[in-house]
Parts: sequence; structure tokens; C-alpha cells
Amino acid sequence: MKYIKQSVLLLASTIVLMSFSDHDKDKRAKKDQHETPTSTKKYWPNGAQLVISVSMQFETGGQPEGAESPFSGTPLPKGQPDLPAESWYRYGGNEGIYRMLDLWKKYDIKVTSHVVGTAAEKYPEVANAIANGGHEIAAHGIAWDNQWNKNYADELNFVKQGVDVVEKITGKKAVGYNANWLRRGPNTLKVLQELGFLYHIDDLSHDEPFITKVKGKNFVVIPYTLRNNDIVNIEGKHWSPDQFLNQLKFEFDRLYEEGASKRRMMSISFHDRIGGTPAMMHAMEEFIKYTKEKQGVVFMRKDDIAKMVMNDPDTPVDNSEEKFNK
Amino acid sequence: MKYIKQSVLLLASTIVLMSFSDHDKDKRAKKDQHETPTSTKKYWPNGAQLVISVSMQFETGGQPEGAESPFSGTPLPKGQPDLPAESWYRYGGNEGIYRMLDLWKKYDIKVTSHVVGTAAEKYPEVANAIANGGHEIAAHGIAWDNQWNKNYADELNFVKQGVDVVEKITGKKAVGYNANWLRRGPNTLKVLQELGFLYHIDDLSHDEPFITKVKGKNFVVIPYTLRNNDIVNIEGKHWSPDQFLNQLKFEFDRLYEEGASKRRMMSISFHDRIGGTPAMMHAMEEFIKYTKEKQGVVFMRKDDIAKMVMNDPDTPVDNSEEKFNK
Amino acid sequence: MKYIKQSVLLLASTIVLMSFSDHDKDKRAKKDQHETPTSTKKYWPNGAQLVISVSMQFETGGQPEGAESPFSGTPLPKGQPDLPAESWYRYGGNEGIYRMLDLWKKYDIKVTSHVVGTAAEKYPEVANAIANGGHEIAAHGIAWDNQWNKNYADELNFVKQGVDVVEKITGKKAVGYNANWLRRGPNTLKVLQELGFLYHIDDLSHDEPFITKVKGKNFVVIPYTLRNNDIVNIEGKHWSPDQFLNQLKFEFDRLYEEGASKRRMMSISFHDRIGGTPAMMHAMEEFIKYTKEKQGVVFMRKDDIAKMVMNDPDTPVDNSEEKFNK
Amino acid sequence: MKYIKQSVLLLASTIVLMSFSDHDKDKRAKKDQHETPTSTKKYWPNGAQLVISVSMQFETGGQPEGAESPFSGTPLPKGQPDLPAESWYRYGGNEGIYRMLDLWKKYDIKVTSHVVGTAAEKYPEVANAIANGGHEIAAHGIAWDNQWNKNYADELNFVKQGVDVVEKITGKKAVGYNANWLRRGPNTLKVLQELGFLYHIDDLSHDEPFITKVKGKNFVVIPYTLRNNDIVNIEGKHWSPDQFLNQLKFEFDRLYEEGASKRRMMSISFHDRIGGTPAMMHAMEEFIKYTKEKQGVVFMRKDDIAKMVMNDPDTPVDNSEEKFNK
Repeated sequence: MKYIKQSVLLLASTIVLMSFSDHDKDKRAKKDQHETPTSTKKYWPNGAQLVISVSMQFETGGQPEGAESPFSGTPLPKGQPDLPAESWYRYGGNEGIYRMLDLWKKYDIKVTSHVVGTAAEKYPEVANAIANGGHEIAAHGIAWDNQWNKNYADELNFVKQGVDVVEKITGKKAVGYNANWLRRGPNTLKVLQELGFLYHIDDLSHDEPFITKVKGKNFVVIPYTLRNNDIVNIEGKHWSPDQFLNQLKFEFDRLYEEGASKRRMMSISFHDRIGGTPAMMHAMEEFIKYTKEKQGVVFMRKDDIAKMVMNDPDTPVDNSEEKFNK
Repeated sequence: MKYIKQSVLLLASTIVLMSFSDHDKDKRAKKDQHETPTSTKKYWPNGAQLVISVSMQFETGGQPEGAESPFSGTPLPKGQPDLPAESWYRYGGNEGIYRMLDLWKKYDIKVTSHVVGTAAEKYPEVANAIANGGHEIAAHGIAWDNQWNKNYADELNFVKQGVDVVEKITGKKAVGYNANWLRRGPNTLKVLQELGFLYHIDDLSHDEPFITKVKGKNFVVIPYTLRNNDIVNIEGKHWSPDQFLNQLKFEFDRLYEEGASKRRMMSISFHDRIGGTPAMMHAMEEFIKYTKEKQGVVFMRKDDIAKMVMNDPDTPVDNSEEKFNK
Repeated sequence: MKYIKQSVLLLASTIVLMSFSDHDKDKRAKKDQHETPTSTKKYWPNGAQLVISVSMQFETGGQPEGAESPFSGTPLPKGQPDLPAESWYRYGGNEGIYRMLDLWKKYDIKVTSHVVGTAAEKYPEVANAIANGGHEIAAHGIAWDNQWNKNYADELNFVKQGVDVVEKITGKKAVGYNANWLRRGPNTLKVLQELGFLYHIDDLSHDEPFITKVKGKNFVVIPYTLRNNDIVNIEGKHWSPDQFLNQLKFEFDRLYEEGASKRRMMSISFHDRIGGTPAMMHAMEEFIKYTKEKQGVVFMRKDDIAKMVMNDPDTPVDNSEEKFNK
Repeated sequence: MKYIKQSVLLLASTIVLMSFSDHDKDKRAKKDQHETPTSTKKYWPNGAQLVISVSMQFETGGQPEGAESPFSGTPLPKGQPDLPAESWYRYGGNEGIYRMLDLWKKYDIKVTSHVVGTAAEKYPEVANAIANGGHEIAAHGIAWDNQWNKNYADELNFVKQGVDVVEKITGKKAVGYNANWLRRGPNTLKVLQELGFLYHIDDLSHDEPFITKVKGKNFVVIPYTLRNNDIVNIEGKHWSPDQFLNQLKFEFDRLYEEGASKRRMMSISFHDRIGGTPAMMHAMEEFIKYTKEKQGVVFMRKDDIAKMVMNDPDTPVDNSEEKFNK
């Protein structure tokens, strides 16, 4: 019953999103004349041709000593505070998340935010700004730390602590999970299921959401991306934001075309201190404008996607990891 | 006698390919006015000026633990499954090969697919989709593993197993070979000759096919590429697909011009999980369209090239490695 | 009283700068029609919408043996002079600084130069050319060497020596500081305050200047950048200057827009031997021209910024490092 | 007396070069209206505003086991032949040099070729093709190997052997030197002077030729480049040839402008197996066309430059390394 109501809400918000893109109708009309007519069968609600789902990691202050940064290539001795590296991290809470929230608001986009527990503790006002903006509060562990090397009980505690801390601050209980560097362990999906999660994102094997069986029950996987992901610039060099914009456009062009005949989802990811910089948000705004030139492009939160596909018979099932999930 | 028939087939398919590119004739007519008139002597059949040969590696599931990926820079302890890395590899079988097959079909291009034996075993439907699309099934070892460190008997077994497994699944027996990371050993060509292979690709020394003598008999080398190769992005960072498109266009422009006065071949390579991503296939489609603006550009399978040049007196002979091939 | 006079001077120079950009008025008028009207409240003097502050490191000859360069990836044995690496460094004093000074003069831009003490000793004529050009002489240590590992007394001596040497040569006493690779230690701000400094730049946590309390008194932090910084190319590969230009433009576009509703500052940094190369200064000139298409963009020295914000009640206070600064 | 004659020859060839660029006069006339009038004093013969000097390294077959290549990041055990890496090197002799010679011929450009002794021994026809094309045969050691770690006698022998071998093959005696990876040692200039060399290029400290005193006599330094150098792509990844073209254009634009008021030289470098690839030569051709849009751009061999500046009182003197050169 709960799902039905959520579907109605989702439907409503999708209609809003799609009508929003009508501003560019004239430009589009001309452009679309040369495009292949789309098939009548649709794979997303309201005839959407492509769903884009944005992840926004909020991690500031959750990082361990020596965490990856433009400084970590030449580490200081253990115990010596790396002050510029710490200031680089703080940028995420001070500027990055707020800048991203402004952009999402300007285009009425709702995203999924993976919130590290200790980040929310140190910056509760940031966590609340995310929640109050209508964005999904998803889990990302109590700290930004290794998860793959924990035993079942420790891992469950690590995840649960993160969920509880963030719920206490924002009032939102996570149903989606993202592990540190995607590196979940063999028990992770069972842990997540036990804690009531609906989905995780730490999988790169498909361009659409799918089901995997965990202890015989449906668990949703909403594939993540290393391609459309600002993490490629965590070292802060050998790269420029126009490359990100080109990657997004090239990826979009193909997925949009494929969306005419199958269910396709495009995943994009931003970390507070990397994607939240001015140049990256400029690239993203240019990309958002680019997607508006096409009809049927919808931005969705991952929890809404998970609820939609969880019991949809069209959703593919992939049990490649079944030996771990029995 | 067999070769003559194949030449006729090849001729026919070349004509099809070349007439295909007539769609853009008007655009071209204008463009070509400023180009140098080509010489009358031709180095490829039907007056083709440049042959492009695409390799498509199918390797999903054949990789060893810790194989190169965006995750292998920070390896997990031996025995610990690297779940996101494995999911990154599965993308090749789930999405990558199918996406590429769609593109080849759209433009009626036949490619050479280097199929790892265990990949075909794990994804027989993918191997068959490749074969059924009219593409060449070439060999790539029984697994995606080191070959240079094997003795003669082990290496022969390693290659033969791969050929046999794939033949059993697809009905196609490979005549072309590609070693893991190109790293064949001193015995490799003798092993290949003993197993009935016509050619290998693990050489970067020329921009055209050539003959090398193995135990006194002709063996064809169809040079591979590290330049027009998606493997440059195996680490998944410091790069964007527009760079690939620029590389292809720059390479093409020069080789096409040279093709007017000598035999030139352009090699391009895609790996299932890297080149099979949406952005890379978008780049490739843009490149295909770019080549259609010129006359006399033909895409060919490598076995067809090998058969054509094997006994052609115009084919250069290079015995740089003769000390190994006696 | 001193500050008032300086504010008047600053006001005057700002007016000059702003009228300078009137050359492009016609082009701009057309362009600006589609832009959001800016709010009436202004965050910089004279209604400026964005302040850009350029750093210019003068370090030639101050580097230790084996200092980072395109050669340091394959170091020579200790004691063996690395002659091409040393010649690479000398470029900064021979060509780099002079080329930059020419560009700043052409566009009447005043920058902040971080001068290493031993660099000024070896190239006094270069240090004086900087000072005589109206640029700020800021401190950068007596040598280009680690600072984070020094005790209080040694660090104070290291900083003071640098200031004294440069003052003796140029007549200018530094009030701003930049540590080697930004890596100050826990005592650095106290050391700087004791020596009469007004500000430091080794912080990446904000896009605007802010106050931090040091022993209870205001100390200004003018955030530095790793993004708009030529240091990304210290290894001399995997990069090209058009990427720098794109980074600057993307960054500018967003910060300029944000500047309509809050105080924003853009930091750009060039090192003598890297940013002072022809291609980089060409990129910078293209960027300067790009900024001239907008109204209200002002280039400022960091000491002028520090004096302006030091006692401005609108300046944010951030005491994230207060445990070190008591 | 000899120098005078050479100057006359140089003068003649310069006139030819400059008239060559008259083809584009109409396009230029329009373009140049907006440019600053050049000063009347000229720093190169015939009123040339900028001299570009191209280096072309011929090294195929001179490399040691495990030499840098796209394969050297994961080296094979000592003694195991790295066959694809060796084939990568052979490309330089098979294709690279010939492709470059074709381009130089098409635009009537004479370059300086740094020829490794063993490369000329293995590919005498290539060495002769270079010499017969009117290009300078300069020295690059007997093998492509470390030079900085040799004592005086060994270093002299290493250099002399290379010169002698190449002279025997081509009939040309080198007067210019380039050390492996630029890494000369403290004795190198004395060794070169003893052997009758006029100049070396392993210095990055200036954008114009200069004199350094070796044992009290003039020795010319013609600065090399790491910026406009295909060696940035020796690893074969994280890069594309359009970046090279952008680097060249940005560098050119600034140096050309500066050439109006001082002597400026642009150095560009290509290695047989890297710069000799189709995409790189396409980039270079695009760059050559770009330079033709400006007046007074001249391509020169380095020996001609050395002879011209050796006794020119306007040539700057830089004795930064005098402690080694006494």
C-alpha cells in the first residue's frame, strides 16, 4: 500500500519535471525532426526515455588521517596534522554542498545524497539543508573508512551507526547504501537487508537498475559510475572540467538513443569537495541545459527508482554474486 | 583454390561497403575538390584507399584475481574478493559487447573479436552473438593471463584450449591471435603456426600488414595499436572520450592521405568493459560518420586481410625476429 | 589611520581598473541583456561583482636538490648534479617572471608575488622588477623547503630570514605568507602573527577571504587554489595549456554568477618556471580578455584584500583550527 | 672565413623559406591589421620575427633492454625479450622517420636530427635518407643510454664513437649534441668542446640561443623543450594529439608576439616512434599551416643557428654552470 502512494507522488513529480523542460520546446522541435521515431513501449513512467540519477556524497570531516587528496601522494608522518589537506576537505561542508544544492534547486532536480555519519555530526546544518531540499538521505557508513575488512557484526554496527546518527539529525532513515570506494565485502548485502535497506549502488555491471536475490528476497542494485564521477579528479591534476562535460555529453547521447528501445539509466556522481567546486558545477549546469534539448529526460532520486523497479516484472535479475548472498 | 573463393566473397562485401558510403556523396563532392588527385595504382581491392580494421576483445570472466581495473591500483589482500572490480568486468558481457554489436550492425561493419576461452564458457550467448553477427572469432588464450612465461608445451596447450573451447561454442575456429597485453614469448609464432593460425596482431612496428617467416613459411602480422585503443583508459581516469575521438580523427586524416600512394591500414581496438561504454561508442559512431566523408574507406576483418596479403608479392617481409622463428 | 589611506588608494586603483574594462562595453551590452539582474547589495568596493587575485611564485634558485620537476620522477644519486633539472628551474628567473610582468603591465594588473629568500638573493634584479612593477612582495620562506617539520623557534627563524632578505633587496616588508606546498605546521599562524603578518594563503576551505582567531586576534586567510594553479603541470606531462584556460573559464563563469549575491573571490596561481612559459601566459591572456566581457571584475593584490576584510563585520570567521591557534 | 660563406648560404635559404610563405598573403593581410606594428630592429636575419627549430630523434635499435615505452611500467624479468616493446621501437625506423621526412619535404623544412650511433648502424638507409634530405645530422651518443654517470674518458669515448659511426655512414660530422634524457654530466661540455662540437641542446633555461664559456671559449646552447616535445607521451596514455597541437599553437602565439621586440626561438621535438605516428604528424602539419598565417616565421637547423649566434655580440652569455666548465 505504501508503494502505491509513493508511485502517485513520483508520478506527480515526474510530470512537473517533464513540463519544466518545455521551455526549450521550439529549439527541440526543429532538432528532433531528424531523429528516429521512438518505439511505443516505454520503460519508465510517463513515457520518459532516459532517467538520470545524481549522487552527491557528503563526507566532510568523516575522512581518516591521510585520506586521498591532492596531498596524499606525499604523506606526512603519522600523527602530523596535514593542515592544507584538512582545509581541502572542509571545502565540501563550507562551499561544495551548498553550491550543489543551489544548482539542484535552480533546475528542480532531486538527488540522492550519501551522507557519512560523522560528517552529519560535524555539520548538522549541512545535512539538514540537504534533507530540507527534498533530496534523498542515503547511507555511507558512520565514517569514510574501509568496510570490506569487517566481520558481519562489526560491519552491521558500522552501517547502523551511520544510519542512526543521520536519522537523529535529519529525521530521515536511509534505504540506500554506498560503501567507501564501492568496496563492500561478501556480507554487505545481507547486512543491508537485515537493516531494512532497499538498494545499494556499489556495482558497475549494468546501465539500468536490476534485482539480485539476497536470502531469497529481492534486493535492488542501482549501478553506480566511475565514468561520470568527479572522483576521477581526486588527485587534482592531469584533468580539466571540460573533459567531464564531454564525458557526460558523450555518455548521454548514446544512452538517450538506446532509451528509445530499452530501459536505460545514467548515473552521475559528485563528492562535496570535488564536484562542489565552481568549475565542476558550471560543467554540470552546461550538461543539464544540454539534456533539456531532448524530450523525456527525467532526473530521479535512487529511492524512488528502487521502489519503482523492486516489484516490476520487467526488471532484470542478476545473481552473479549469489554465493555470497544465500 | 580456397583463397580465390574468399577473395570473391571479399570483393563482394567490399562493394557493398563502398556503396553504403554513397549516402554522403553530395557533401563529399564539395569537400574533395581541394584534395590531391590520387595515384592510379591501388594497394587494396576495388580501389580502396584505406582499410580500417577493428578489434573487439571479449574477456569478461577470463580475468585473474587482481586484474587491471580502476581498482587494481589499491589491491585488496589476496583471496579477498574485490566485488566492485568484478562487477566492473561483468559490464563487458552484460552491456559492452552488445552495445558494440549494435553499432557494427548499424553501419554494416565486420570486426575481429578476440575471445578469451573462459569468457566464452561463462557467456556462450555473447560469443554466439558475436559469431552470428558475421564477425571474426579470433583467439585470445584460454584465460586472460600471462603467456610470455610459459614453455613451448604449456603455451601450445594454453592457446589450443582457448581455440577449442570457443570453437565448440560458436562453431568457428580461430586463425588469428592476440596475446594478453600483446606479450607473446619467443615461441609464440611457432606455436601458432603449429596450430594452423594464419596471423597474429601483437606487433606495433608498421602501419600495414606484413609477412614474417616462421620456420621458413609465410606468417602474417597485422599490426595492432596502442594509440587507437581504449586500453589507454583501463585505469579510468585522467582522460575523456573526446580525446579518443580526436586521436582517431588525427590518425585517420594522415593515413588516408598516405593511402593514396601506399598500402596503409588503420587499427582500432575496443575491450568489452571499456570501449563498450556509452561514451566510447558515441565517440566511435562520430568517427565512423567522419570516415564516411571520404571515398574508398573500407572496414575489414583481420582474417580477410590475412588471406589477401598472405601470398601477395606486394606485401612487405620483415624478419626482425628471425632468431626466434627458425 | 594607515588603513584609511590605503582604502582610498585602493578605491582609486579599483576605479582605474573598472574603467579600463570599458573598452568592451558595446560587446558586453548585447551580451548582458540575458543575464539575471544583480542584487543591490555589494560585497566588494565600488560595486565589484568578483575579485580575482593572482599569485606569482618566485622560487628560482631556492629549490633543494632533487626538488620536484619533470626530472624528479627518476632521481639521480644524491650529490650528482641534475643539470637539465637545474636549467629547468633557472627558466623562472631568466624568462618566466619577466614574461608575467609584461602581461600584468599590459592589462594593468597588480599581483601578489611570493618570493623565496634565496631566490631574491640570487636574482635581486628580478625581485626588484617585481616590486617596481607595483606588485605585492609576500613571503615564501628563506628557501623552498619543508616547513611543517620545524619547531617554533626554527620556523620563526625560517620565515623571518626570508622576510628580512627580501626586504633588504626590495625595500618591501611582507605581510602575507605562503608555505612550501601549502604545508604549514601547527605553529605557523602564531609564528606569522608574532612577525607582524596580516594574512596567509595556505587554506583551501572557502571561496572568499575569512578571519581566523590567532591568540584571540583577527588573522586573515585568503584561500589559495590547487585548481587554477599551474602546479598541476609540475611533472610536465599528461596535460596541455588549453585545459588550464578551460578550467579558468569554467571557474570564472560560476563564481561571477555567484558574486551577484555573495562575496566571491577567485584565486589563480603561477610559478615562475611553469606559469611563466609562453603557452601558459597565452592561456592567461585569453582568460583576462574573457573576464573583460563582464562588468565588475577587479584584479587585486592580497595585501589590499587583507586590509579591506580584516575589520569588515561582513567577513566570515572560521576557527576550525583553533586548537592550534590559542 | 668559413662562417661568412655559411651565412650567405643561410641567407639564401632563409629568403627561399620566407617567400614560400607568401602563398597565404591575402589571408594574412586582413589578419594582420589588428596587430601591433613591429619595431624596426630585427633579431634574426632578413627581418624574421620568430625562428622555429625542430629536433627529430632517430633512436630505433639504440635503446637498452627495458627502455621506456608503454610496456616499461610493468617490466619483464631481466633477459626475457619484451617482443611487443621491441616492435614498438622498430616503428621509428620503419615508419616514423620516413613519415616525418615526407612532411618536412612537403613544407621545405630542414630539421636537426639527433642520431644514435647504433640506430644508424642498424638502419643505415634511414640515416642516409635523413642526411640526403638536407637535414642536420647531430649526435646523440653511440647508444641511447645513461651518460651522466661516466667518467671523462668514458664519456668522450661514448660521444666520439657515436659521431664516428654516423659520419662513416652518412658522411656528415655532427657539431651539435643531445644527451639521453638531457642528462649530461659535469664534464659533458668540456668533452664536446674537445671533440669540436659547436653547441648542445640539453638546457631549458631560455627561449633563445645563448653562449656559455667552456674553458674560456664560446660554446653555444640552443635550448631544448619538454613542452613542445612528443616525449610527454612516451607512456602512451592520458593524452591525445590535439593537446599537442594546442600546446604548439599557444606557445607560438606568445613567442611570435614577443619576437617583435626581442630574439625568440621556438623549439619542437619529435622522437621517431612517438612523433612519427600518423596522428602526431597530422597535428604538426596543422601547426605548420597555422604558422604560415603569420609573416616572418622561419624554420632553421640548429647548426645554422649556432653558427649565426656564436660570434654575434647580441647573443646573451649565461655562465650559470661555470664551476663545471673551467
